[in-house]
Amino acid sequence: MRLVIIGGDAAGMSAASEARRRAPEAEIVVLEASRDVSYGACGLPYKLVPGADVEDLNIISAERFRTERALDVRLGHQVTSVDSAGKMVRGQADTGPFALSYDKLLIATGASAVRPAIDGLESLWGKGAYVLKTLQDGRELKAALKDKPRHAVVVGGGYIGLEATENLRKAGLEVTVVEALPSLVPFVPEAMRQRVMQEAASQGVSIRLDTKVVEVRRGASGRMVVGTTGGAIETDLVLVAVGVRPNVAFAKQAGISLGAGGAIAVDDMLRTSVEDIYAAGDCADAKHVVTGKSVWIPLALRANRAGKVAGQNMTGSRTTIPGIVGTAVFKFFDLEIARTGLSEQEAKEAGWDVVVATITSSTRAHYYPGGGKLFVSLVAERKTGKLLGGSMVGPEAAAHRVDSVAVALHAGLGAKELYAMDLAYAPPFGPSWSPLLIASSALMKAMKVD
Amino acid sequence: MRLVIIGGDAAGMSAASEARRRAPEAEIVVLEASRDVSYGACGLPYKLVPGADVEDLNIISAERFRTERALDVRLGHQVTSVDSAGKMVRGQADTGPFALSYDKLLIATGASAVRPAIDGLESLWGKGAYVLKTLQDGRELKAALKDKPRHAVVVGGGYIGLEATENLRKAGLEVTVVEALPSLVPFVPEAMRQRVMQEAASQGVSIRLDTKVVEVRRGASGRMVVGTTGGAIETDLVLVAVGVRPNVAFAKQAGISLGAGGAIAVDDMLRTSVEDIYAAGDCADAKHVVTGKSVWIPLALRANRAGKVAGQNMTGSRTTIPGIVGTAVFKFFDLEIARTGLSEQEAKEAGWDVVVATITSSTRAHYYPGGGKLFVSLVAERKTGKLLGGSMVGPEAAAHRVDSVAVALHAGLGAKELYAMDLAYAPPFGPSWSPLLIASSALMKAMKVD
Repeated sequence: MRLVIIGGDAAGMSAASEARRRAPEAEIVVLEASRDVSYGACGLPYKLVPGADVEDLNIISAERFRTERALDVRLGHQVTSVDSAGKMVRGQADTGPFALSYDKLLIATGASAVRPAIDGLESLWGKGAYVLKTLQDGRELKAALKDKPRHAVVVGGGYIGLEATENLRKAGLEVTVVEALPSLVPFVPEAMRQRVMQEAASQGVSIRLDTKVVEVRRGASGRMVVGTTGGAIETDLVLVAVGVRPNVAFAKQAGISLGAGGAIAVDDMLRTSVEDIYAAGDCADAKHVVTGKSVWIPLALRANRAGKVAGQNMTGSRTTIPGIVGTAVFKFFDLEIARTGLSEQEAKEAGWDVVVATITSSTRAHYYPGGGKLFVSLVAERKTGKLLGGSMVGPEAAAHRVDSVAVALHAGLGAKELYAMDLAYAPPFGPSWSPLLIASSALMKAMKVD
Repeated sequence: MRLVIIGGDAAGMSAASEARRRAPEAEIVVLEASRDVSYGACGLPYKLVPGADVEDLNIISAERFRTERALDVRLGHQVTSVDSAGKMVRGQADTGPFALSYDKLLIATGASAVRPAIDGLESLWGKGAYVLKTLQDGRELKAALKDKPRHAVVVGGGYIGLEATENLRKAGLEVTVVEALPSLVPFVPEAMRQRVMQEAASQGVSIRLDTKVVEVRRGASGRMVVGTTGGAIETDLVLVAVGVRPNVAFAKQAGISLGAGGAIAVDDMLRTSVEDIYAAGDCADAKHVVTGKSVWIPLALRANRAGKVAGQNMTGSRTTIPGIVGTAVFKFFDLEIARTGLSEQEAKEAGWDVVVATITSSTRAHYYPGGGKLFVSLVAERKTGKLLGGSMVGPEAAAHRVDSVAVALHAGLGAKELYAMDLAYAPPFGPSWSPLLIASSALMKAMKVD
């Protein structure tokens, strides 16, 4: 039996490793377009600071996968087409074109940074303008930082943009973030958005909201000029972080059905619409536990988990993968920004009559030194109190406290049930009434439940 | 209508305040034996360091309760008997004996530090030997620290003993902890116990396990001598932290039924066995969600919550209080030690056939600076995988991550369901597979579930 896996990062290598554990005799071929396999892409922003090395993000080398797990990892192999009738993949390698038959195929091609069609940008990639998605992107950006740029424009204030902003700042650059939307972190309530803006200001970061980039060019002085709807910004370096797109080109050509966000539609066994073809990771969709609908929320845990399940099912198991609730967290200087489930707007768009409670509490007992204000917001269905989502912003505690809400969402709990929870307390870690309980109580009040 | 509340700390003042909100016209009398109401007792250990003030633990003064909430707070009123037939309480105040009739009575007398019968100790209380439970205890210990003791013996290595140890150390003292049991934190697995011992050693704290104190006396030199089963220890100060006992003397005399741990037995509306008498806080028992049985686990959140519910029910509501899972956390120098639900031993004693998984993970991504090793242990029923408890030890993340397990226990989830959770990940906060998921997976492996 030959298993072919297209893509050698989180999902692909998890699948390959799991398949190997379960099927010691199977031939397992991993086709990776780049030169890198299995790396911690989420760590890229943190490697922008001086002294940090992008190569530290490598987890297991292709060579180790070959020798220790007997996986036939082929680097520089770009798949260009899949013939599902003939069960063949075809593509281009350094050594020329290749064709390979498969018994079971996994598409784990991930997602790519969006490179928007902005005037002048096309010719500047790698020469002043960068994205930050792959290890190679990281190497190029690190190389550019060796020229000691004084100022950077970060286009896009999503979590990659903001994580990069923090680290560029720590690398000594002035940073201006240009965000097309009228707000950063639009998935949290206004008070929490303001807290994030305040953090940016206190860290000396300039944030331009409601501003679109219309042009990027190299000016007469040799510096870059970023033309925006709010005027031109002169800078040394442009980092474009306006999101990612699933890599589905050949999947689409092969007639594989696409789902949410244009990602490959998979069922709960990670099967695509075409027999013997699976998909996992950032290129595939997932079922949202709260809405029951297909969504595309490409995050690391799901990619790892889906890879593992795909590896099981390609070797004869019938394991189902659980749905997701979209739990995400990131650090922005001295703030933790976390969310899970649906935002108020998402819940409304999904048709719910919602009630929202946003409270501020503190990350330590009032008499315990340090800490700060913790914002907690919960979204629930008005009629039943069923929790739909939550978010937290604070200098500590948000990143891990949000998991309690995620568990509650998976368990289908309501505000009253969350309020009943016996949660941890000690003075260094919060007030005796956990902020989550205070928020649940506020939710019940907003629902007029006693 | 006259409501009488015996005890003016967390449960008592929560009850009084809630009753006032619901019954603006009611006469509400709070009888407090000491001079202090409503203070953060959990903060006492942290006020032992120089510059910290025990008085900062006061939350709301008796005067403010009187003027802002119209509560008749009577300090220095020690209740000595309850006549439930005549609906009267009697006691002793500074001004002489008092008697007061009630329509509804709440017993919120809390717990007291155990003062063990050790040879010589009786005459040394306040003169070299101390406990740390009340604000007054804190004042006395702080006063003793003004004499610049160089060394302290802490008798008892429970969480109060260990929190006090940390802060006495930070106040510049050498500390020896004498623990009668063969281990600190007996509710966590061996590897985690060792981690706690290692922390003590690295902080220069001497821990003597399996050692009983047999005598305390003042030696010829004027220093104290603590005689133990492992030899005598010369010291300047002895802090006895061997646990607490519910204050139930007059409740017992009044014929009120006692429950787990000798605390007052209450139903889920906080009613005692005697009509119109309620109990809440550290003097009352609670139902454990996992076992369904009565337990006595006196902790702050429960006291606050029970006070609130008692205040509701004394004013005509029929609110039920949820059970507890015994979630607790404390800080010991650079470690967070957290638990929820049943320990392996407790689960076995309760009759379960248990499976335990203990894993080590890390508190940050492997390439992210700082952090350290996080231990996670989960206990489940072998046959069904139903979660029974969990514990965590690490330099960060344990205090808040344990709440996820608490929520899972309340929701009655199993190992497989916990493993399905979509939990938060970013490099500064943990690995992509949350330590909790890794532990769930280990639990499933131990159960031989795929």
